[in-house]
Amino acid sequence: MIDPRVASGLRDLLPAVMIPRERMLQTFRETFASFGFVPIETPHIERMEVLTGKGAGSDEVLRQIFEVTNKGGTPGELALRFDLTVPLARFIARHMDEVGVPFKRYAIGSVFRGERPAKGRFREFTQCDFDTIGTDSRLADAETAQIIHAALAAADVPPFTVTLNNRKILDGALESLDLSGRTGLVLRSLDKLAKIGREAVAAEMQRPADAGGAGLSAEQAARVLDFAEAGRGGVSVLDAAEASLGSNPKAAQGIADLRTVFQYLEAGGVPAERLAVDLGLARGLDYYTGIVFETTVDGWERFGSVASGGRYDDLASLYTSRRLPGVGASIGLDRLLALLDEAKALKAAGTMAPVLIANFPGTDPTVPVRLAARLRKVGIGCEIYPEPIQVGKQMGYGSKHGHKLAVIVGPDEVAAEVFNLRSLETRHEDKGLAWSVLEDSVHGALEVLQNGSLPS
Amino acid sequence: MIDPRVASGLRDLLPAVMIPRERMLQTFRETFASFGFVPIETPHIERMEVLTGKGAGSDEVLRQIFEVTNKGGTPGELALRFDLTVPLARFIARHMDEVGVPFKRYAIGSVFRGERPAKGRFREFTQCDFDTIGTDSRLADAETAQIIHAALAAADVPPFTVTLNNRKILDGALESLDLSGRTGLVLRSLDKLAKIGREAVAAEMQRPADAGGAGLSAEQAARVLDFAEAGRGGVSVLDAAEASLGSNPKAAQGIADLRTVFQYLEAGGVPAERLAVDLGLARGLDYYTGIVFETTVDGWERFGSVASGGRYDDLASLYTSRRLPGVGASIGLDRLLALLDEAKALKAAGTMAPVLIANFPGTDPTVPVRLAARLRKVGIGCEIYPEPIQVGKQMGYGSKHGHKLAVIVGPDEVAAEVFNLRSLETRHEDKGLAWSVLEDSVHGALEVLQNGSLPS
Repeated sequence: MIDPRVASGLRDLLPAVMIPRERMLQTFRETFASFGFVPIETPHIERMEVLTGKGAGSDEVLRQIFEVTNKGGTPGELALRFDLTVPLARFIARHMDEVGVPFKRYAIGSVFRGERPAKGRFREFTQCDFDTIGTDSRLADAETAQIIHAALAAADVPPFTVTLNNRKILDGALESLDLSGRTGLVLRSLDKLAKIGREAVAAEMQRPADAGGAGLSAEQAARVLDFAEAGRGGVSVLDAAEASLGSNPKAAQGIADLRTVFQYLEAGGVPAERLAVDLGLARGLDYYTGIVFETTVDGWERFGSVASGGRYDDLASLYTSRRLPGVGASIGLDRLLALLDEAKALKAAGTMAPVLIANFPGTDPTVPVRLAARLRKVGIGCEIYPEPIQVGKQMGYGSKHGHKLAVIVGPDEVAAEVFNLRSLETRHEDKGLAWSVLEDSVHGALEVLQNGSLPS
Repeated sequence: MIDPRVASGLRDLLPAVMIPRERMLQTFRETFASFGFVPIETPHIERMEVLTGKGAGSDEVLRQIFEVTNKGGTPGELALRFDLTVPLARFIARHMDEVGVPFKRYAIGSVFRGERPAKGRFREFTQCDFDTIGTDSRLADAETAQIIHAALAAADVPPFTVTLNNRKILDGALESLDLSGRTGLVLRSLDKLAKIGREAVAAEMQRPADAGGAGLSAEQAARVLDFAEAGRGGVSVLDAAEASLGSNPKAAQGIADLRTVFQYLEAGGVPAERLAVDLGLARGLDYYTGIVFETTVDGWERFGSVASGGRYDDLASLYTSRRLPGVGASIGLDRLLALLDEAKALKAAGTMAPVLIANFPGTDPTVPVRLAARLRKVGIGCEIYPEPIQVGKQMGYGSKHGHKLAVIVGPDEVAAEVFNLRSLETRHEDKGLAWSVLEDSVHGALEVLQNGSLPS
């Protein structure tokens, strides 16, 4: 016997998890599409060179890469993708003439990282990315945040906050502190503020350059942190920033851009209480150059961001000489589902077919088959129990799997052309309903169950 | 610069391909769910041992396996799955107690085979599998064929034929020819009949055992082939088979089972003209033991089967001592889409958002953002062009991407609170429509375009 376990850090997804997951993915797809985004798919396997080109991935990500070899293939040539951004950059470099710019695409798929396995950390996980490529437009910036809001709201995620910043404001602030040359290092430290706290970040910022730190003085670190910590709140935070930083042209530009984005978000119907500004928000990645965002579920901030992204100046410089600015975000499906599960905000689900049709011992199985076909024809999913075992056991199967109603037709009911309709929740049973009113009866009973009241 | 190509045998899927593909997958998911099937997902990476256990895959498939290694991992331990059946077997052995039987699951995902790249053959392709596990029921057999029919019909596949056989009939026929010991070899040859023709199959059957053949006499080969070739047609073929083979208990059982399945299919509303019997149909795989099916699109038989499967006696014997019979099928999404593309039966698609809202130079962008939000609220997908370039160019973008209508609001229209609505197909433009009737106007215009007539 071979042990049927999966490899370390990998997992099987069971129906109870998969059903809400597929529902959520379909909601995301529909939301992306409703904004004119179109899907693309790239292979799970990429050429190693594409993935490991300078700057394609962080050193950490590259250490976690899964190499792929087939018999007769050359080792080191192929690898599994570790995100959907590098494949997007390669894709757009290759297919630019076919798809044209601006190009608004979404992509949903598995990515692979050989991380040390830990609770809630997997070596294969799903990313849901959408990007607008080939434009420097504020409308596209705002639309990205608007889509995060629309997708999560449509997926019934509990109240959440999309936090925005513009890297230009931070860059300007650092410039005014004479720290321009050290922006990347400072931002990388600052990005850990929520996670490790002010003191640890200050210490990291003061670490000398030869130890990988930014080499700030204690006072410089304090001023950066003061700036970041004062800059959290509603859009009014921008007024204070303008007062203190407005003379720095870079910061002024970032503030003006962010104001514009907030105007567009208001016009787009995103409620102000779902939005926040955080002038310290950096989003570690070096390549963000304008707006950045992240998203936390209110009260569940410890899970981290469930949807993040930002604007970049040049997406595909590794693969094409054409400059392609863009803006995009990624929804972390697995993290979001884990959060909703822990928050008990996921509806348990065992089946998507509400009706179980009994396979009554002694009843010709063509009868349930015929009734099932009629129900499906009017859009009511239903399942026939495959074997004519004891009906009570079939009902147990239905309850376990989440069927709402059972249609039961024994030999007596066949003779009278009637059926019994049992609620698997309340155990109430309507007996002797005519076959001719099957669809209406089942439809009505489902409505009652859904609304908790009699249909009017 | 790094060359942005993909590795040999792999491919990017562009929006024009992805849009019908996603639509089709969603149709399949809904169909599977309407029969009570639930989704599962297993990792793309499996332990090598699971994939290469005796009988898990054919020698050919095992030669094509992609090995996976991460830094610090042990070479030879992990590999990419080559189908969804082996992972299902492992899954059910591992999770039997949680999911219970009968278990009706579907799974959709990429599988990987290092085949020699050729036109239409890819090293990564998508399978759409559904199986009913843990029952020997004829209802489940019939339901599998019924779902193939329902899924393809719902996906608007042109007229197709689901061909059925029962391996017991073939086994009985070979038994009556004294060829029981050589069933596997004979069936493997027979399975090539449609592809390589009668003479080549006869020659292969006569090849001696030490050359990998079945070692039949010329007369035996002729009788097998006569049987197979006479056995193609409607369900009446079973009458002739009964007359000639009815005295063989195995064949008699197979014939009776197949008759029952046809009764259930009729009761389930599958039109008789979509069904056929082919007593020579073997489906190469050794593990099929009962019903087998394959599906061809009428007139496009040269593409081979687009949906195939059958009943097996014991799915997971490599991983559990519990006997798990079942029946299932796999829809070959890539082959089906390639066929539909060549048959010009795929609707070209560039976007799923029918409306483009112009970003008119000089118009405050909050105006199009507001109008777009209103349209999305009533379920009309729309896209705003991200930059205020010349409107003619924006219209060109809309035409290229398949938008149907453009909403145009210049500064004059803003002042009058009106908009112009242009058909990107006919170039007809309705001018000066009031903002207050935006939703109704766009909805009405889309209906006209869809129906080719004025709405009543």
